[in-house]
Amino acid sequence: MVLAEPAAPLGFKAAAAAAELAREKAFDAAIDPAELRTWLEQMSSEPNQVGSPHDKANAEFMLGKFKEWGWEARIETFEVLYPTPRSMALEMVAPTSYRARLAEPEVQGDRTSGHAGGGLPPYNIYGADGDATADLVYVNFGTLEDYAELGRRGIDVRGKIVIARYGQCWRGLKPKLAQEHGAVACIIYSDPHEYGYWSGDTYPKGGYRPEDGVQRGSVGDITQYSGDPLTPGIGATKDAKRLPIAEARTLLKIPVIPISSRDATPLLAALEGPVAPAGWRGALPFTYHMGPGPAKVHLAVASDWGQKTIYDVVAVMRGATYPDQWVIRGNHHDGWVFGAWDPLAGNTAVMAEAKAIGTLAKSGWRPKRTIVYASWDAEEPGLIGSTEWAETHAEELQRKAVLYVNSDTNGRGFLYVGGSHSYQRLVNEVGGAVTDPETGASILDRLRARIKVDGVPATSGSDGQAEKDAVESGAEFPIEALGSGSDYTPFLQHLGIASVNLGFQGEDADGGIYHSTYDSFDHFIRFGDPKFLYGVALAETAGRLVLRTADADVLPMRFGGLADVAGRYVSEVVKLADDEREDSRKLRQLIDSGAFRLAADPGEAYAPPESPGDVPRFDFAPLTAAAARLKASAEAYDAAFDRALGTDFRLPAVELARLNELLQGVEQSLTRARGLPGRAWYRHMLYAPGIYTGYAAKTLPSVRESVEQRNWAAAVDSIPDVAAALNSAAARLDEAATQLVPRLGQSRPAARPTPPPAPDGL
Amino acid sequence: MVLAEPAAPLGFKAAAAAAELAREKAFDAAIDPAELRTWLEQMSSEPNQVGSPHDKANAEFMLGKFKEWGWEARIETFEVLYPTPRSMALEMVAPTSYRARLAEPEVQGDRTSGHAGGGLPPYNIYGADGDATADLVYVNFGTLEDYAELGRRGIDVRGKIVIARYGQCWRGLKPKLAQEHGAVACIIYSDPHEYGYWSGDTYPKGGYRPEDGVQRGSVGDITQYSGDPLTPGIGATKDAKRLPIAEARTLLKIPVIPISSRDATPLLAALEGPVAPAGWRGALPFTYHMGPGPAKVHLAVASDWGQKTIYDVVAVMRGATYPDQWVIRGNHHDGWVFGAWDPLAGNTAVMAEAKAIGTLAKSGWRPKRTIVYASWDAEEPGLIGSTEWAETHAEELQRKAVLYVNSDTNGRGFLYVGGSHSYQRLVNEVGGAVTDPETGASILDRLRARIKVDGVPATSGSDGQAEKDAVESGAEFPIEALGSGSDYTPFLQHLGIASVNLGFQGEDADGGIYHSTYDSFDHFIRFGDPKFLYGVALAETAGRLVLRTADADVLPMRFGGLADVAGRYVSEVVKLADDEREDSRKLRQLIDSGAFRLAADPGEAYAPPESPGDVPRFDFAPLTAAAARLKASAEAYDAAFDRALGTDFRLPAVELARLNELLQGVEQSLTRARGLPGRAWYRHMLYAPGIYTGYAAKTLPSVRESVEQRNWAAAVDSIPDVAAALNSAAARLDEAATQLVPRLGQSRPAARPTPPPAPDGL
Repeated sequence: MVLAEPAAPLGFKAAAAAAELAREKAFDAAIDPAELRTWLEQMSSEPNQVGSPHDKANAEFMLGKFKEWGWEARIETFEVLYPTPRSMALEMVAPTSYRARLAEPEVQGDRTSGHAGGGLPPYNIYGADGDATADLVYVNFGTLEDYAELGRRGIDVRGKIVIARYGQCWRGLKPKLAQEHGAVACIIYSDPHEYGYWSGDTYPKGGYRPEDGVQRGSVGDITQYSGDPLTPGIGATKDAKRLPIAEARTLLKIPVIPISSRDATPLLAALEGPVAPAGWRGALPFTYHMGPGPAKVHLAVASDWGQKTIYDVVAVMRGATYPDQWVIRGNHHDGWVFGAWDPLAGNTAVMAEAKAIGTLAKSGWRPKRTIVYASWDAEEPGLIGSTEWAETHAEELQRKAVLYVNSDTNGRGFLYVGGSHSYQRLVNEVGGAVTDPETGASILDRLRARIKVDGVPATSGSDGQAEKDAVESGAEFPIEALGSGSDYTPFLQHLGIASVNLGFQGEDADGGIYHSTYDSFDHFIRFGDPKFLYGVALAETAGRLVLRTADADVLPMRFGGLADVAGRYVSEVVKLADDEREDSRKLRQLIDSGAFRLAADPGEAYAPPESPGDVPRFDFAPLTAAAARLKASAEAYDAAFDRALGTDFRLPAVELARLNELLQGVEQSLTRARGLPGRAWYRHMLYAPGIYTGYAAKTLPSVRESVEQRNWAAAVDSIPDVAAALNSAAARLDEAATQLVPRLGQSRPAARPTPPPAPDGL
Repeated sequence: MVLAEPAAPLGFKAAAAAAELAREKAFDAAIDPAELRTWLEQMSSEPNQVGSPHDKANAEFMLGKFKEWGWEARIETFEVLYPTPRSMALEMVAPTSYRARLAEPEVQGDRTSGHAGGGLPPYNIYGADGDATADLVYVNFGTLEDYAELGRRGIDVRGKIVIARYGQCWRGLKPKLAQEHGAVACIIYSDPHEYGYWSGDTYPKGGYRPEDGVQRGSVGDITQYSGDPLTPGIGATKDAKRLPIAEARTLLKIPVIPISSRDATPLLAALEGPVAPAGWRGALPFTYHMGPGPAKVHLAVASDWGQKTIYDVVAVMRGATYPDQWVIRGNHHDGWVFGAWDPLAGNTAVMAEAKAIGTLAKSGWRPKRTIVYASWDAEEPGLIGSTEWAETHAEELQRKAVLYVNSDTNGRGFLYVGGSHSYQRLVNEVGGAVTDPETGASILDRLRARIKVDGVPATSGSDGQAEKDAVESGAEFPIEALGSGSDYTPFLQHLGIASVNLGFQGEDADGGIYHSTYDSFDHFIRFGDPKFLYGVALAETAGRLVLRTADADVLPMRFGGLADVAGRYVSEVVKLADDEREDSRKLRQLIDSGAFRLAADPGEAYAPPESPGDVPRFDFAPLTAAAARLKASAEAYDAAFDRALGTDFRLPAVELARLNELLQGVEQSLTRARGLPGRAWYRHMLYAPGIYTGYAAKTLPSVRESVEQRNWAAAVDSIPDVAAALNSAAARLDEAATQLVPRLGQSRPAARPTPPPAPDGL
């Protein structure tokens, strides 16, 4: 496949375009897969969780490298709550005895798996301490829908211990919902259906999770806020005012233990009670029952509730033209054990980029805007390193940051990319400019091909059809909305800084060893990215996003994509309310007709679902009007941009600077100071992690979740809020469009009131 | 729930209606669940496969009972090809050794499972003899789609032994397609995902298939013709002209062995090659691979290719008014081992009905039409008892039979019912008149409730939406189209006799022990119909269909439902061709664009699908016109029927008789003498078992399958044929409508040409 001649990068004057493309070639030439391999092997050679010597050593190693590569680099530290297990026990006490091993043995051929000594045992950080003995109930993935199914069968988890399988939602939601339903403890296990032999051969024959593999991970409630549980909204500096542990809303009140499928097997096999419905059945070789009992379990956790120092590495290269516009690029460096995939495969790409940019700088080039490279600590317990840094520097970041580019785990295969739709066009441009190392096509063409062939997986709130249609029509590739689960969250959803998250995946066996001891260098070079070609591709992609944003004359933003998705999200919530109303009416009718009774087996306890009340009609007019206004303003800006491009952005420097300032603030105009209902820390009106999904995004979250949760008052309350955010963005685009028109010779449009600044974030 | 006052039965004069309803009450009162239990226990006490002493004894037992109950009864025998295994062997010879046990051990608490001595080992009748040693390939369900997936991975089964799992299609298609693709032998196993612990606890704890359970069954090609392989189209009487075995199209050329999941485990676990795609993975606890090899298997089958005598029990009660109109009711009596569920649970309902009708007759009543009760032998090897009887008496049956009512296995739960849509209204009436024994609602209301709550499972050619819509709108309940797999096939699809097939299911564990030694009385009374209440419900339902059809003044037929489905089927095939055309175009484009190459993992062999050619445009006009004409004629007949009902069918006896004769022939007008493309034995233009489904129906099969198989010439050829069938039915309805109008006082409609008789079947 012959790639088209590269077009001039978005936002560059003609004279600057060729230099930028040449710089990107030089950038690519400075990236060496052998170095990625060397760094990965060294950094993953010892356990490197928060608080471990090797994690700190990795930070210091990077600090040295950044300096060597010509960056102004420093380590910023924070003091954060980081409980570690003192003792953990899990045993079945009836109907037979079984003591869970709660450990991951050495695996043949994996050199590090036998000496994880400096690491921690598998545990779920931010579960409570506790000691409970109770009957066991299987709750499937532990979602709200799962509890509804239990309820229809008359199964109550109050006073019980629940066992949930990993998957489908943020792990922290599983114990949170268990706790809300009255359970006294929660076990989370890895079913081979999601993570093990069902998907492929297990490690070491293949890359999938062996039956002893355990998924560690945080169960802090990141849907409330990310970062240190004791310092929401402020940096966890040494002297910061901290909440008492009992008041931290992100901490659980019940204990949680993660276990392997081997440890889960005797527990699940001993359950009786109703046979679990089809969607609840995993791949273990027995009939899944729901309980409660007769399996009775004793579970105990005791922890050291101390603080740890965390080490964010931050490297700065000062911009020559706009030193107060910052392009930030980050990945975390803390792992759960060796962390070869997660996070080091992504982190070494960040290092390669930093080295390559350093190489460019050594040749005399300086970026127009300031570039900040960061390697965060303590992402795993709850995006802490990034969040504390973002909270500490909030005011400055909101003034200066134009884009945050994040990565995390990296594998092999297809680009995945989500983020602020104002940068969708740039992502498309860059995706077309980077070559997939195994096919020679552009990474964007590969991704488009896959979507054409396989479609887009449905996500909450979207059936994937709009994305597939866009790809088939050849329109701009639609990037995903971001939920949470990596370090973009504090930037995007707390501070309103435009963000992009990306990586490669789909042709590897990542899920197999995720958050286990087997996430190792030996695993990665067999089942991840053996030749480090996708590490290079990640560096080339993220590097271009950084370089183009840093050096563009006008920030490389377009707003048609943003207006399109905003319009689509509005249509979706309007339809959601209508569907909800109609579905509720039908369901009530069905319940009242007795159909559920007649459809159920009289020999089994299976009650009808709860009868839903009426859904009111909402006045969505402010929202649809705001979406329409945003569309008009976005089109006007994009058209003005095209005209200005035609005249090579012939604006006086001060005008250009003012334009760039206006563009910097567009994303923040989509935030509101009072935040989302019940979780004020989240301020973005377009994107948030779902309260009941955690990882997956909810778009227009305040409206959508209020309707989903049947909180009609909150829905009514949220509509004008979201409309105001869209209107505020539109007003800012109007001003930017006006700013784009060169004054020379051409009269500016007649008096148009400058919109008031958005109420927050600017 | 209060049931409405029963309406006058369809087709009855007012004066006769009350007597009919009273007779049905007396009929119900004569049915005793204790008797069903007694008969079931006795008849399932010994193995009763074709040729066994107990199968013959059961026939003789029924003969005695029918006579005792006042029927003219006899046994009709046929001589049919019935190979039985002399020796069978299956072993893995590499990479390790494993000798399959090929037997079902005794199960604790199941009294008969330990003495199946008079039975046959698990085998697949009509597989060939053979001895092969070859690498193994896993082919999933063994469908065409599965071979396409193998092909894309470069896996060729030529010279290999394939292993397929039971499910999704007629078992005979698995070795047939294996043979067509060049395999030298076929193994079929029961995966716990379809039949075992995945669904529920296994026998004896629960009702599902234990890991030693084997599904026996025929692999004769019933999609070509049913009955004795050597006498297609004619009765297998002693002196019938028989085909040489080598010329029988329904016999395989390769050997087949059915095995348990225990025997399958080491074979499947030893496979390597590509990991099987998600839809191929069963519930065994390892990664499913496709092969070929390194598992190498030796398989050998040698059989006695002798004939057996089969015993159809046929009992007749002569009609008083229309002795030459026959209502036929049947179920088979041969099992694979003990056959408690399949077929005896249904067969005992037939016996209860016969006894109750006998009781009515003893009180002096005689049916208007002749009633024939039958218990067929040799259904299991290929619907042989029913087919040979139907072929032997074909001419008489086509002249006289007005309805065939079939049942087979019976369980517990919801009515399932399929058949000729000309009897859909009667089925609705009867379904509303029979009470579900566990809820007190009518069986129809229960079924409607379930569809409202759970929807209708999609079947080939239908997404179930039309059925769900009908139920939700309160319209007539839409009965299913019949494919094959039980004794209605020779009546409906070979002879064109209106048929209904019914039973109860959905709240039992039938699939668990289907065609195994564990299909026993002990299993049935725990996991089937413990109180025999659904046996009674089956008798009440089928009995009403028989009694009302036998005693109605005008045959209880309505044609709106028939015209509706014919119209829907026509719309479906038109849409199928359009979709096929558009999908082919898109797929070609996608292949040509190279998208499949870019979407595939370069590290794996996965070729694009084959590029489909153009789909021509078909002239469907004759078909849509015929569907419209049928609709008009059906509406006119139904309206005339309603008017005649208003005048209490005041027709002279000879006119009424002529009307009934016309109605008797409607179903046959839907057949064509030359039959379906490539399988002339199947003559019905509306319903057939799919060539690639076996059990599941294809509607408008000649057109639909020709399009699906991209045989454009056959599609073009079939359209006028099907249109002629619909037109022929319409013409007959026109004549019947004319006949319905009483001559007295009212002039008959002006000269309308009497349509020519349909070219066949009348």
